[in-house]
Amino acid sequence: MDQTDPAPPRPTIADVARAAGVHASTVSRALDPAARHRISEAVATRVAEAAARLGYHPSALAAGLRSGKSRTVGVIVPDLTNPVFPPIVEAIERSLSAAGYVTLLANTAGDSEREALVVERLAAQGADGVILASAARGSTAVALCRSRHMPVVLVNRRLPPGEKGDVPSVVSDDAEGLRAAVAHLAGLGHHRIGHLGGPPGTATATDRLRGFRAGIKAAGLAEAIGPIVQAEAYSRAAGKTAMQEILRTGPCTAVATANDLLAMGAYDALEEAGLTVPGDISITGFNDMPLMDRVAPPLTTVRIQHAAMGQEAAALMLRQLAGLPPGPNLRLAAELVVRGSTAPPRLRAT
Amino acid sequence: MDQTDPAPPRPTIADVARAAGVHASTVSRALDPAARHRISEAVATRVAEAAARLGYHPSALAAGLRSGKSRTVGVIVPDLTNPVFPPIVEAIERSLSAAGYVTLLANTAGDSEREALVVERLAAQGADGVILASAARGSTAVALCRSRHMPVVLVNRRLPPGEKGDVPSVVSDDAEGLRAAVAHLAGLGHHRIGHLGGPPGTATATDRLRGFRAGIKAAGLAEAIGPIVQAEAYSRAAGKTAMQEILRTGPCTAVATANDLLAMGAYDALEEAGLTVPGDISITGFNDMPLMDRVAPPLTTVRIQHAAMGQEAAALMLRQLAGLPPGPNLRLAAELVVRGSTAPPRLRAT
Repeated sequence: MDQTDPAPPRPTIADVARAAGVHASTVSRALDPAARHRISEAVATRVAEAAARLGYHPSALAAGLRSGKSRTVGVIVPDLTNPVFPPIVEAIERSLSAAGYVTLLANTAGDSEREALVVERLAAQGADGVILASAARGSTAVALCRSRHMPVVLVNRRLPPGEKGDVPSVVSDDAEGLRAAVAHLAGLGHHRIGHLGGPPGTATATDRLRGFRAGIKAAGLAEAIGPIVQAEAYSRAAGKTAMQEILRTGPCTAVATANDLLAMGAYDALEEAGLTVPGDISITGFNDMPLMDRVAPPLTTVRIQHAAMGQEAAALMLRQLAGLPPGPNLRLAAELVVRGSTAPPRLRAT
Repeated sequence: MDQTDPAPPRPTIADVARAAGVHASTVSRALDPAARHRISEAVATRVAEAAARLGYHPSALAAGLRSGKSRTVGVIVPDLTNPVFPPIVEAIERSLSAAGYVTLLANTAGDSEREALVVERLAAQGADGVILASAARGSTAVALCRSRHMPVVLVNRRLPPGEKGDVPSVVSDDAEGLRAAVAHLAGLGHHRIGHLGGPPGTATATDRLRGFRAGIKAAGLAEAIGPIVQAEAYSRAAGKTAMQEILRTGPCTAVATANDLLAMGAYDALEEAGLTVPGDISITGFNDMPLMDRVAPPLTTVRIQHAAMGQEAAALMLRQLAGLPPGPNLRLAAELVVRGSTAPPRLRAT
């Protein structure tokens, strides 16, 4: 179907060979399940990664050699209206599309029953693999994918440390990101720093809380730690409720939140309480979702690599679709972006 | 709306779920011999009793599955990262889920070739219907759905007036919304009002431009109309470029934009030019996408009924899936929300 090919400048086997630093004949062997044993695992992996990066697929696969395959990959997100997901999904989609795959997205609304139903429906329709961005802990969906022999990749989540399984994943360095936010606040002179955390039971909330505590410890503030309240969901409304609880719980001059939507909810609660950001309380976010530079005040936040996360997740999927063993667990650096929502604590007039 | 009820006398899976106090997905499992082992005996019994009491026949579902129906509906959007779509899609999904359908979302990146590929892939996988939110004019996708005998519904777009076809749709009253924005600006005393329009070739851009002209005419400003520039895409970057062109083209004290993202781009261009909103130029948006109350200054915009649009689109789809003829073309009212980005024009000091 030339006319529907989404990638006009299609990479050739020579491009892959050049990128991987091998002969073209090695590329064909690496991508041919019947011949792969003739080359080393390391070389096969290098070739598969180069092929994924360039969007190259051997014509045998493109012709649908494997019966029952639909050349679609499902991506499952917990909440479509959380602006952190669209840029990640868009990057996944662009990479998969270049390799001739259609991406179908499903929303679980954070419901694990629904997640299982979606996986079953995708499997029944012959999806080639599933990329899970769902926030919920536990791995019913992972187990389901496996029982259906569908490759699975996690993005923006990981399996809990205790859970058995060898599932490739791409996450941000959440703990390090929160630690950097706390170090920034401590550096501005804040001594009582609170944490508005993510929903209990999510890996992101756990890792970010760990980063918060590490930051507090590193700054020598363990004795004066501010309130810690975990929101019920990653939403603006839940953030508002949690911030109201922080205000009731105890004094603090800064709050490091676990997510930009939660930070927006914190803005709402503070405005309603007649407090200003950063005059009365400094606020930091997490994700640097779109428009965070345009809100009032512009949000100091931890920027994750949305596009890179999507690209790497797609590469980990394509690698498995090419018949290679599951890839590694990747952790991408997150970077603090300082804007107007953080400032030194106001000098007490009283 | 009685006419959109998919099957008034027949109990649905949602009715059974409600009666048994479980999720719809649990009902399908309880009534599916292949999946029943995944739920408890007690729950399976409760569901079976509720189904018997209501006269719900699981054979209908089984028959549907046998006839190649997948109980999935595809939703195709032009740009996942445009925040106007997630709330619409979420409402579609909630309605379809209550009726036992899984919603699979695909992004076309505004590419009509890609749209056709996605429709074909959905059809090949036995999707029961397709809801198109794609912005592009023309109806390749519509024609494709028809040739595959897949029900189709349009949301946030309509077929151009000249185009033949009887495709149910749900749109906002775009022309009336823009007219109201212009009336608001004229009421504040603006005489030179420009229009930052949507991409040529989209029905939304056409309707909103028409509303702009109608508003200008109604205010008696036809002689002093400001610059009209259409953006290349509904994006912040395209809005910035178009606003820069408006500033070069001619004087105006207010600009009615066709979309909130375009308005955000206008903010960027004005800030870069050292101009303030609304001090130097008043700006209005369209959609009232999330966070427009939090940007600086908060955006005066035209609020569309995201949730109602999604619900009506889902109802129009379910009606067809129940075997009824395609429903009507609905146009939902849009409402002006006045915030801080509009003010009377500044008195000239010169």
